Amino acid sequence: MFEYKKFLQFPINIKETDPRLANVIITQYGGPNGELGASVRYLSQRYTMPDNVSKGLLTDIGVEELGHLEMVGTLVAQLTKGSTPEEWKKLQSWEYYADNGVSVFPQSSQGTPFNAASIAVTGDPLTNLYEDLAAEQKARVTYDNILRLSDDPDVNDVIKFLREREIVHFQRFGEAIQLLRERLNQKNVYFMNPSFDK
Amino acid sequence: MFEYKKFLQFPINIKETDPRLANVIITQYGGPNGELGASVRYLSQRYTMPDNVSKGLLTDIGVEELGHLEMVGTLVAQLTKGSTPEEWKKLQSWEYYADNGVSVFPQSSQGTPFNAASIAVTGDPLTNLYEDLAAEQKARVTYDNILRLSDDPDVNDVIKFLREREIVHFQRFGEAIQLLRERLNQKNVYFMNPSFDK
Amino acid sequence: MFEYKKFLQFPINIKETDPRLANVIITQYGGPNGELGASVRYLSQRYTMPDNVSKGLLTDIGVEELGHLEMVGTLVAQLTKGSTPEEWKKLQSWEYYADNGVSVFPQSSQGTPFNAASIAVTGDPLTNLYEDLAAEQKARVTYDNILRLSDDPDVNDVIKFLREREIVHFQRFGEAIQLLRERLNQKNVYFMNPSFDK
Amino acid sequence: MFEYKKFLQFPINIKETDPRLANVIITQYGGPNGELGASVRYLSQRYTMPDNVSKGLLTDIGVEELGHLEMVGTLVAQLTKGSTPEEWKKLQSWEYYADNGVSVFPQSSQGTPFNAASIAVTGDPLTNLYEDLAAEQKARVTYDNILRLSDDPDVNDVIKFLREREIVHFQRFGEAIQLLRERLNQKNVYFMNPSFDK
Amino acid sequence: MFEYKKFLQFPINIKETDPRLANVIITQYGGPNGELGASVRYLSQRYTMPDNVSKGLLTDIGVEELGHLEMVGTLVAQLTKGSTPEEWKKLQSWEYYADNGVSVFPQSSQGTPFNAASIAVTGDPLTNLYEDLAAEQKARVTYDNILRLSDDPDVNDVIKFLREREIVHFQRFGEAIQLLRERLNQKNVYFMNPSFDK
Amino acid sequence: MFEYKKFLQFPINIKETDPRLANVIITQYGGPNGELGASVRYLSQRYTMPDNVSKGLLTDIGVEELGHLEMVGTLVAQLTKGSTPEEWKKLQSWEYYADNGVSVFPQSSQGTPFNAASIAVTGDPLTNLYEDLAAEQKARVTYDNILRLSDDPDVNDVIKFLREREIVHFQRFGEAIQLLRERLNQKNVYFMNPSFDK
Repeated sequence: MFEYKKFLQFPINIKETDPRLANVIITQYGGPNGELGASVRYLSQRYTMPDNVSKGLLTDIGVEELGHLEMVGTLVAQLTKGSTPEEWKKLQSWEYYADNGVSVFPQSSQGTPFNAASIAVTGDPLTNLYEDLAAEQKARVTYDNILRLSDDPDVNDVIKFLREREIVHFQRFGEAIQLLRERLNQKNVYFMNPSFDK
Repeated sequence: MFEYKKFLQFPINIKETDPRLANVIITQYGGPNGELGASVRYLSQRYTMPDNVSKGLLTDIGVEELGHLEMVGTLVAQLTKGSTPEEWKKLQSWEYYADNGVSVFPQSSQGTPFNAASIAVTGDPLTNLYEDLAAEQKARVTYDNILRLSDDPDVNDVIKFLREREIVHFQRFGEAIQLLRERLNQKNVYFMNPSFDK
Repeated sequence: MFEYKKFLQFPINIKETDPRLANVIITQYGGPNGELGASVRYLSQRYTMPDNVSKGLLTDIGVEELGHLEMVGTLVAQLTKGSTPEEWKKLQSWEYYADNGVSVFPQSSQGTPFNAASIAVTGDPLTNLYEDLAAEQKARVTYDNILRLSDDPDVNDVIKFLREREIVHFQRFGEAIQLLRERLNQKNVYFMNPSFDK
Repeated sequence: MFEYKKFLQFPINIKETDPRLANVIITQYGGPNGELGASVRYLSQRYTMPDNVSKGLLTDIGVEELGHLEMVGTLVAQLTKGSTPEEWKKLQSWEYYADNGVSVFPQSSQGTPFNAASIAVTGDPLTNLYEDLAAEQKARVTYDNILRLSDDPDVNDVIKFLREREIVHFQRFGEAIQLLRERLNQKNVYFMNPSFDK
Repeated sequence: MFEYKKFLQFPINIKETDPRLANVIITQYGGPNGELGASVRYLSQRYTMPDNVSKGLLTDIGVEELGHLEMVGTLVAQLTKGSTPEEWKKLQSWEYYADNGVSVFPQSSQGTPFNAASIAVTGDPLTNLYEDLAAEQKARVTYDNILRLSDDPDVNDVIKFLREREIVHFQRFGEAIQLLRERLNQKNVYFMNPSFDK
Repeated sequence: MFEYKKFLQFPINIKETDPRLANVIITQYGGPNGELGASVRYLSQRYTMPDNVSKGLLTDIGVEELGHLEMVGTLVAQLTKGSTPEEWKKLQSWEYYADNGVSVFPQSSQGTPFNAASIAVTGDPLTNLYEDLAAEQKARVTYDNILRLSDDPDVNDVIKFLREREIVHFQRFGEAIQLLRERLNQKNVYFMNPSFDK
């Protein structure tokens, strides 16, 4: 089970509301490469991993990503807090307001609600870990995209912190693949499977 | 942020694998009325609630639902652990195996991946709380459905515990609505909105 | 079966085209909280309600919502009628035009096609009615959002009428819940179910 | 607006429950070729049709399809009415019960909720009518599929009636295309568009 | 199997980047009426067509549409190549960049990922061909929409070529329907089916 | 553009129809890890790759996967060819027949239509290649799942061939990552990005 701690992994204090920027950041809340998908992916994959090391790794990172989900939600909430309809009327993307009002809804920037079709959870440990490597790269590049669009230094410090964590996770998943490949009969994994190959 | 505790809110020890029953239970993992949707709904809504009491309530229940998500995943994992392709061949629903293997994927029983279209997160506190009332009833009735289909007493004890918690949450959301209605100008909420009504 | 009446429940005469505003209103045509979902929800739920009173209520409101769907479509059609590509080129949201041209497509403001994942139809009467309470609040708040974005008094009169009807429906569903709870063994519904509880 | 008539276009009296057959018929309720999509397609397209004849045709058929939606729902409701969990346990497709209980949910047989991605509503009258021709063929062939799977004569009489109506609609849409092509400058429609071709 | 030819069916040389226009054109890459859907539709339908003529037709057109998919992708790629974040910041639709960066993702203009719900593949030859007639009209009208929004002559030449090909395909599908209706017992197709009608 | 060759990369001659097995294999046609997603992913990513080597690799493999898509479709078509409604009635999964008849529709085994949400196309070359590594593993493990469920040696020879190709692709993508990392400033890719880091 989970316990809630009343602080963030990295402090967030946005000084200026900017609903247009919030619209871009929301993709890391509920978009295909975002933190919701990340935590669900890892916390779901761990059930069928073959050993406690990989189970523990997926649990640790999955729980950390829940905290990042909270951080991204906090960014969106602070960037829109108190924003008036007048501000949204001037916005280039007021459709978000029509659909959701001032809120933090799990969707991509372009408005597609979060869909678990963007994650894979298989019964194969190696496949799960390659999925996770790719996921970390996709999260990293989405934070890159956001950094290129944002001029708010308070936002950017948070995004840079989150991006850095994805790089650390990427490396830990890479190490887990090495360990697993050493443990498994490598030929089996890549070239044959004794249950149906001879 | 979140901290992981290495135990469940209620112990789970399934003695017999039963992939067909797992296929039914998975809907409370990633189906429209399941625990994933519940926790994302509550943890997303809290950002824009107007006071600390309702924020705290949504955080508490959202975090508890994350633990319930883990419990439902554990049920599915234990019901399928070590299940052989031969067992699945005999199954009436081997399509899950084709798509996901032996794993815990966030989907409905009928195979639709989790979609945030099934939850609402609005900027309106009262609307959020009615959404939550309804969500608890939908989760309760889905557990009812599962109980009617399952003959495994080990499974049923867990499901009954989870169902009971949904009823408690339903009552807490009902109380929150009462509080909020007293606090707000009720006429405003239901009959007029001074920003555009006169 | 249904019969068509060649008039609207409330007259609509929009004087100025405004495709951008149409883009916002379309969410009540085919978005998650819109009139299409409302009518499908109620007209589908009624089949398994336990008595003629609740069946009749769901039929009445479901049929009225079909009329509201037509009204929202009429708003969108009048707001875009005769709009030229040049107007859309200047628009901040010309993507709608690329996907659908000048038309009334059932989608959210942000462009997600209507998806029945946003509605619940269960075999449980009480759950259905709580779902309906929440649905009316979600429709009400979406009309609130539209009113805050729109400056066109001809549009706003229609939206206010539609919003008022949602509030009436909300109250009728609330009364239906009271009736049902008195009729049912309440303990059963909330605390135990004699088919699997003792 | 719409008025409800308390009778069906064709009487339905199913004598034996058969949840498995209901699972097949549900696709004409909320599947990609079903009656919900049909009525939404026609009732949405009519707003931008260029003359009262085609508007009237789409309204007439759209309203009739709403009645067919009700008939298909009635079939599903009667085929499942009073079905016990024990019957569903023996079923090859009990996943529907887990997700929805005994109810009439708008989905395909395989469990995908209705999605308006399966319909097209464009601002082009000819395109709309070809879409409608295709839609009627798709509905006809789905009723063919159901007839080939069902052995219940009470069900089959209803399905044959519904199938016959699709054929009539197909012919009416074909006539509307002829009329429209005569009215329009045909060369324009197929080979050039004077607004950007010379 | 397929072989790749290193040239396009029609040359593409866009001189000015224009990410906003790319956002509109992308709908013919992965939107509901686009080239991806077209090629998947035809290449999937051909497996169960009753004769080599219709199989060959579907293969020919399906393969040509793959080439058109490549052309539309090339348009999008050339229109965005080297576009800087600064250009996107000024854009009215920078959400695409947040979700996908500078890339060619299969989606509609409004941001919905390609979904095969927008195509039909049935076991009925006539239904497939009517689906195809409608598909060609929907592609034609979407190219019309794009032409009305675009002022770039280099883009428009390509779009006009693609539109013209859809009209040719439309006519070929029309001919195939005539052939098939002559070959089949027409009464059977429209009015009765001897396997269940008498 | 593409040219069609009237032969398969590997011959397919299935002797016994088996619609139930076809239902499992269809996931590699249109499921989340299937050949349709694979070819669309690679053929879309190549537009923005930074050099001709990686563009060529993605084109080569993308085109080969189109051929594999054709092979999987051929498997499904041969396994269902001439199957009678009576066979499907006995089947544990006759819902496919209700929705699609005897046909080859792009969907998962559990019935979800192909959705591009399951693929990523970014403007970042390294991210694309990690996505591709993961994709090949997911395809490989799905073929493993199918092999474990299938007892038909004619099917299994084809599946083993396809699985082997995924392993070859996996290795080629791994090599491409090595090349790209050597070419790029590795520190930049993983630890900093000079456009916003200092």
